[in-house]
Amino acid sequence: MENLAQVSYALDTFYFLMSGALVMWMAAGFSMLEAGLVRSKNTVEILTKNIALFAIACTMYLLCGYAIMYPGANEGGILPVLGTLIGGENSVEAVTAGGDDAPYYSLRSDFFFQVVFVATAMSIVSGAVAERMKLWSFLLFAVFMTGFIYPVQGFWKWGGGFLNEAGFQDFAGSGVVHLAGASAALAGVLLLGARKGKYGKDGSINPMPGANLPLATLGTFILWLGWFGFNGGSQLKISDVENANAVAQIFVNTNAGAAGGVIAALIVARLLFGKADLTMALNGALAGLVAITAEPLTPTALAATLIGAVGGSLVVFAIVALDKLRLDDPAGAISVHGIVGIWGLLAVPLTNGDATLGAQLLGIASIFAWVFGASLVVWGVVKAVIGLRITEEEEYEGADITECGMEAYPEFTGKQ
Amino acid sequence: MENLAQVSYALDTFYFLMSGALVMWMAAGFSMLEAGLVRSKNTVEILTKNIALFAIACTMYLLCGYAIMYPGANEGGILPVLGTLIGGENSVEAVTAGGDDAPYYSLRSDFFFQVVFVATAMSIVSGAVAERMKLWSFLLFAVFMTGFIYPVQGFWKWGGGFLNEAGFQDFAGSGVVHLAGASAALAGVLLLGARKGKYGKDGSINPMPGANLPLATLGTFILWLGWFGFNGGSQLKISDVENANAVAQIFVNTNAGAAGGVIAALIVARLLFGKADLTMALNGALAGLVAITAEPLTPTALAATLIGAVGGSLVVFAIVALDKLRLDDPAGAISVHGIVGIWGLLAVPLTNGDATLGAQLLGIASIFAWVFGASLVVWGVVKAVIGLRITEEEEYEGADITECGMEAYPEFTGKQ
Amino acid sequence: MENLAQVSYALDTFYFLMSGALVMWMAAGFSMLEAGLVRSKNTVEILTKNIALFAIACTMYLLCGYAIMYPGANEGGILPVLGTLIGGENSVEAVTAGGDDAPYYSLRSDFFFQVVFVATAMSIVSGAVAERMKLWSFLLFAVFMTGFIYPVQGFWKWGGGFLNEAGFQDFAGSGVVHLAGASAALAGVLLLGARKGKYGKDGSINPMPGANLPLATLGTFILWLGWFGFNGGSQLKISDVENANAVAQIFVNTNAGAAGGVIAALIVARLLFGKADLTMALNGALAGLVAITAEPLTPTALAATLIGAVGGSLVVFAIVALDKLRLDDPAGAISVHGIVGIWGLLAVPLTNGDATLGAQLLGIASIFAWVFGASLVVWGVVKAVIGLRITEEEEYEGADITECGMEAYPEFTGKQ
Repeated sequence: MENLAQVSYALDTFYFLMSGALVMWMAAGFSMLEAGLVRSKNTVEILTKNIALFAIACTMYLLCGYAIMYPGANEGGILPVLGTLIGGENSVEAVTAGGDDAPYYSLRSDFFFQVVFVATAMSIVSGAVAERMKLWSFLLFAVFMTGFIYPVQGFWKWGGGFLNEAGFQDFAGSGVVHLAGASAALAGVLLLGARKGKYGKDGSINPMPGANLPLATLGTFILWLGWFGFNGGSQLKISDVENANAVAQIFVNTNAGAAGGVIAALIVARLLFGKADLTMALNGALAGLVAITAEPLTPTALAATLIGAVGGSLVVFAIVALDKLRLDDPAGAISVHGIVGIWGLLAVPLTNGDATLGAQLLGIASIFAWVFGASLVVWGVVKAVIGLRITEEEEYEGADITECGMEAYPEFTGKQ
Repeated sequence: MENLAQVSYALDTFYFLMSGALVMWMAAGFSMLEAGLVRSKNTVEILTKNIALFAIACTMYLLCGYAIMYPGANEGGILPVLGTLIGGENSVEAVTAGGDDAPYYSLRSDFFFQVVFVATAMSIVSGAVAERMKLWSFLLFAVFMTGFIYPVQGFWKWGGGFLNEAGFQDFAGSGVVHLAGASAALAGVLLLGARKGKYGKDGSINPMPGANLPLATLGTFILWLGWFGFNGGSQLKISDVENANAVAQIFVNTNAGAAGGVIAALIVARLLFGKADLTMALNGALAGLVAITAEPLTPTALAATLIGAVGGSLVVFAIVALDKLRLDDPAGAISVHGIVGIWGLLAVPLTNGDATLGAQLLGIASIFAWVFGASLVVWGVVKAVIGLRITEEEEYEGADITECGMEAYPEFTGKQ
Repeated sequence: MENLAQVSYALDTFYFLMSGALVMWMAAGFSMLEAGLVRSKNTVEILTKNIALFAIACTMYLLCGYAIMYPGANEGGILPVLGTLIGGENSVEAVTAGGDDAPYYSLRSDFFFQVVFVATAMSIVSGAVAERMKLWSFLLFAVFMTGFIYPVQGFWKWGGGFLNEAGFQDFAGSGVVHLAGASAALAGVLLLGARKGKYGKDGSINPMPGANLPLATLGTFILWLGWFGFNGGSQLKISDVENANAVAQIFVNTNAGAAGGVIAALIVARLLFGKADLTMALNGALAGLVAITAEPLTPTALAATLIGAVGGSLVVFAIVALDKLRLDDPAGAISVHGIVGIWGLLAVPLTNGDATLGAQLLGIASIFAWVFGASLVVWGVVKAVIGLRITEEEEYEGADITECGMEAYPEFTGKQ
């Protein structure tokens, strides 16, 4: 039976690694989505931000984030202690000893799975502050977000902190990842202000259409695919019948949620705007995915479709509402990940008897308060020290030339 | 040994889920392929169709398609009974009881794998009717195709219906998926007519080059990758030596078929047109993949290369021939999936002793007759009720503005 | 226990196949990277080269390459004997017999994993010779490179040849794949000369910016994802605790190497050029990946970040230096895969006690001498017989029209 324990350990480790690779792939999804939704003159800059933030997230989480989020000891608290970098690795003896607390997957595979999650949270931010924020200010914020702000609230839930003790349910991170990312984004947007010309003095809202919608669509499909790893991997184990069934249910529900989101967003947008709005369909897919992320296991596939559909409807209204509030979010990140993330968390008690509305509200309030507050402080300090916003002339010319010294599509836009 | 059965069950389930995720990814492949092959003014619309059809396919197959295709009882017939939505799930006891009919993978993972197949069949249709069909008419057809037309013939073969009883061999769906999709597409193209200006009154054929060939190439590579899940997963089991060897052979052959298709199409196009025609190379890859899909297991890798090469040659002639017949298919879908799908089915007896030419012909005729006939009826009703085709002015302006209210590349095409 | 051996065999086979599929995906990565970095008038041609070279690599490696690289017998030599195509397959009896030399994965899955590696090596070449080489001359070279030149040096290390005997360490192919590809590229670039107008007579270096940087970024993310298969699969086994831990460590380190490369390249480029240079960030990611490929197992994650960071710094200087030497490499392939590949090989002894500087130098010298020399001969013969370079007028007009008869973006570049 010792060898069986080893094969089982290998299967769970492999499942973790494949799931993590799918989540890593979401970084490409966010990059393409955001690059497609901004104007061509700000495309190189958003791409640079995306690949750089991923690299920073991986490095900061390695240096301190993982140790903060999973300290090992002091469970149930608010302040984590600092663990050791990424810890040791399981021995053959420990694995084959048997018993309920024998390790069943590689600790390194767990780190890999976790590190790509923090990058996802950070990717959410870049879309919201696009087209007017200084590149290096953004990257400086990324250092603090991925090395400290995210890990602290991650500890509260997944590291065994007080939200976990309080019964807050957040299966794969509608709160810990998506609401957290959106909260940081909202703080940035508030301090940064809207893009020049977005909101007229007469109350008008000027559309600034994205330069490359096939790219945005590709990004959405990438995220959809990656989400199977995001949610599917969050079961944390696959190697027995019960867990295998659970992972399969999660795949089905994740897909159903996205499908429901697309259909609902298309119909709502058709009713509101009279057209089949592609960007709303894309946002609907993502909203469906965010909505089902808080609890992808307990709903039936039909219920998952409906939870996604509510998310897909909600996101259309949220995007319209944020524009009315003059909160300029070029990629719709606050609506998709914040508003719909909250919906996902509130929907958990509908299908999961272990969840309570009270604990869910506590979780939402705690994550938002911490991430929004801490982000406000960090964004504020960065603003005071090196500034957040490029100059008006730079914004007019585009961040690509001023920040990166090159154009995304030098032959297409007819400037040269 | 009970635990071994559980680990084995988990491995097969995981293999199904990963295969299904790869097939889901093919939706992105079709989207990019088709978006690259249409003109820029019809790009948003084809992207919207693609993401919406995927969502509709997932939802309709959940609501009734799966129950029609896999009714459980009444095997061998023409008319399936309606099963229960997506059924229950396997218990630990059933799995560990042992014996030949103990379930060996999660029923949910089977549903996930099946649901992405129906989406693939529907994706084939969108390319053929591109650039002139009304968006909502297309989506209405998708409801019937994915909820009823596809599942009925799927039942005939994979659900244990009469084609299965008759010895028809179609490993991963050259017929059930690809020929079915192409048959529905042909019916649509016939009722819809060609794009304005495609065929001159003097018999001339006017090329309408795709706006973004890197996107089309990306789509092809995505499909190539996804096909490993499509064919590889269709072995349905990997957890013992024989099945693992089979899946590995299928991966090798799938890749070899695609490679053979590319080389043959490039050479044939070079001989016919004098140039290294990229779109033909892409079609060649897809043709090689479609050709090997009917039987990716029994050929040697060399035979698979040749089967793919025949497919890759055939597709070049088929595309030319369809244009001569004035059947306007912007993405070459009828040639790639229909003509080459038939070739794939006819090639099965060459390497698989269980197949007979008679049974293969019966399968081809049955699938084509049903899907083409039923589609003609549905397309016809849709045409009578809400119309199939956008107006001539709308077609001139492009479906993006009229159907979706936005442009795919607002800064590149110099219209504004 | 016989059944356990079967499940274990299936797991390792599945791990090989998934890894191979990820490496196959790298072909899409190179295609998008190179298509994004060339000018629009040479985009169709580079796409055609990429899909064709992949097909040729798969076919030639099947026909003779694999047999040359893994002859089975005559270990330790310089000249391999020719094996049998791709050999037989393991029987259930052999697998379940037990003992240390019982086969533990499908031989077909090994072939699949190997065949995508040779395609990777060939993909490296296409970027370096882009924008001025004849398409069919390139494909002719691909036949010899993938059928003979690559397999011979592959045999030296991974087939058990003299470099393996000498203690040369190259875990996943910084030398066998990346340096080999770069050496072939260098030979081609030397015989081919620079693009017209790249280097002025006054010593000036004229930038020729790539037409589509989002595409190049997508390509980089694809490669990053694929690299988990490239390095992770090279452990060759996952089914016990030790190997599962190793694969997980490799995933973590591969990711860390890439992250380190991005950060270092961004900073170095900022210091040198004053801007956040996206193309250097992309090259930095790839350099980090190439650097860690020679030994992704023994470093800690922190050491892997540093090894990647050195690679990412190095690549910026290498690209500048090659331009000063007037070696025109549009995709930076020689710098990324050659110079940084050497760095990766030299860094192995820093963390792996089994490696010696002498053996590493022997490996570098042998691989470079063989691949560069043999490539020079093949490129030279091709040059003499059919020529390597398109005419000056063709180069001015672009290879797309002259070689492929179509444009990549017919509506965007305003030519028509």
